[in-house]
Amino acid sequence: MPITQFIKSKTNFQPGEVAFVGAGPGDAELLTLKALRMIQQAQVVIYDRLVSEEIMSLVPNDCHRIYVGKSTDKHSVSQDKINDTLVEWALKQKKVVRLKGGDSFIFGRGSEEINYLLHHQIASHIVPGITAASGATSYAGIPLTHRDIAHSCSFITGHFTASGELDLPWQNFNDSKQTLVFYMGVRSAKQICQGLIAHGRAITTPVAVIYKGTQSEQKVWRSTLADLPKMIANEDIKPPSLLVIGEVVNAIQSGELAEPAYIKPEESCMLQAASCRIRAAS
Amino acid sequence: MPITQFIKSKTNFQPGEVAFVGAGPGDAELLTLKALRMIQQAQVVIYDRLVSEEIMSLVPNDCHRIYVGKSTDKHSVSQDKINDTLVEWALKQKKVVRLKGGDSFIFGRGSEEINYLLHHQIASHIVPGITAASGATSYAGIPLTHRDIAHSCSFITGHFTASGELDLPWQNFNDSKQTLVFYMGVRSAKQICQGLIAHGRAITTPVAVIYKGTQSEQKVWRSTLADLPKMIANEDIKPPSLLVIGEVVNAIQSGELAEPAYIKPEESCMLQAASCRIRAAS
Repeated sequence: MPITQFIKSKTNFQPGEVAFVGAGPGDAELLTLKALRMIQQAQVVIYDRLVSEEIMSLVPNDCHRIYVGKSTDKHSVSQDKINDTLVEWALKQKKVVRLKGGDSFIFGRGSEEINYLLHHQIASHIVPGITAASGATSYAGIPLTHRDIAHSCSFITGHFTASGELDLPWQNFNDSKQTLVFYMGVRSAKQICQGLIAHGRAITTPVAVIYKGTQSEQKVWRSTLADLPKMIANEDIKPPSLLVIGEVVNAIQSGELAEPAYIKPEESCMLQAASCRIRAAS
Repeated sequence: MPITQFIKSKTNFQPGEVAFVGAGPGDAELLTLKALRMIQQAQVVIYDRLVSEEIMSLVPNDCHRIYVGKSTDKHSVSQDKINDTLVEWALKQKKVVRLKGGDSFIFGRGSEEINYLLHHQIASHIVPGITAASGATSYAGIPLTHRDIAHSCSFITGHFTASGELDLPWQNFNDSKQTLVFYMGVRSAKQICQGLIAHGRAITTPVAVIYKGTQSEQKVWRSTLADLPKMIANEDIKPPSLLVIGEVVNAIQSGELAEPAYIKPEESCMLQAASCRIRAAS
């Protein structure tokens, strides 16, 4: 079936409705066909800081764009204000796309916004997106599960609570066959490593840090639980970065990333090492 | 940017390479743009049982299709045979797409196959897909995280080991703020509920079962940990179904699914209850 025909065959986005669209981790090619369809039908797009410029370039020229991420003075638009903005434009009978980095339902607060819209009798579409834990690890050549070494994976927020702590059940993360992926974990990496080690994860557990996963600026570092905080400091690793903890970090053997999401046998890659994106811990 | 131009602008799939493409949970619109590009360039597609017919309809007519899922006599093609098939077609200098339901790196054995290809000096592309835990829950109106009620989510296989058991660290799943998603958990639901209850999850913990998530046959049932096994028996729920366990099951209030992935305020939905896909536990 031609792609243009396929996309046109599913059109049910009505004026006065809001589509929650997961934009994925950054590479615009990781948008789903449904996400693209909703974006191209949108009359208003309300978007966050983590939506890449490449993705915003796919928004129709005549679409009204409203940015609700952090501004240059670092103040975020409040959740209440975002909620009211969604209601305001839906009540104006626009086709509203709420565009969020990753997936709206995984650390995206999509369900809070949907509840607010329901309270105002407004219907929502939900378009899942590739979440960072999946997209960034794929592009870094790291599986989330692997036979015999990882039988489950957990996605956890490394965001500090208002009181500056990490309110996490560390004792639940002590299984060496469980892959842990921390979102927003760069600033709390020291506490994460301390918590995991204190509750039984081996200090030699492999760790990867993926900066701007799936985007052209992607970088990947590998280390261990014991050495991670030092590496983050030495390499001056900044958000947005993802921490991946577990044996899966080294599950793919004898290969190197020539480009994100493109694994070549090691020998060939050595010939073009300058373009390799995996960097060893210093 | 026009979509056709956008898709053509990223072409680096070479003969003799294998692209691991996550097909997502079933709805072909949940393919990523990159997945579609790889599929449309493929000369050989090696695909599994969980790849929907709608997605296979997007494979070019002149592409060679090789099915490696379960046959009607229920025998699967062995992993060794799949590995050899991948190598065979790559060495014939074809553009090979390895198409898997969901995501290749989440219970998809993609990394095992990539290691085998690396051993044969064959390069791989990795295209992440929407995994069932994300896609099916989105279409069922269930967030994986929600402020104050779920700060992490875990994806776990409910597949029995060769000895007919579930080898899982139950004590690690006792946090009421952790969402648990079991893949392939219908047949092992009784053991899962027993394990979780014995290790401290409340018998009233909400549970959803999603059958054929994101596809036109999608059905959603809601129950509790205590009542789940009985409901699965009474409703004769079959695989492929996903179990979702945690308070998030009821996080979206006052809404109903008029269609999968489309939440309407309750009142409107009552007018067309016949099309509602959420069914209460009997």
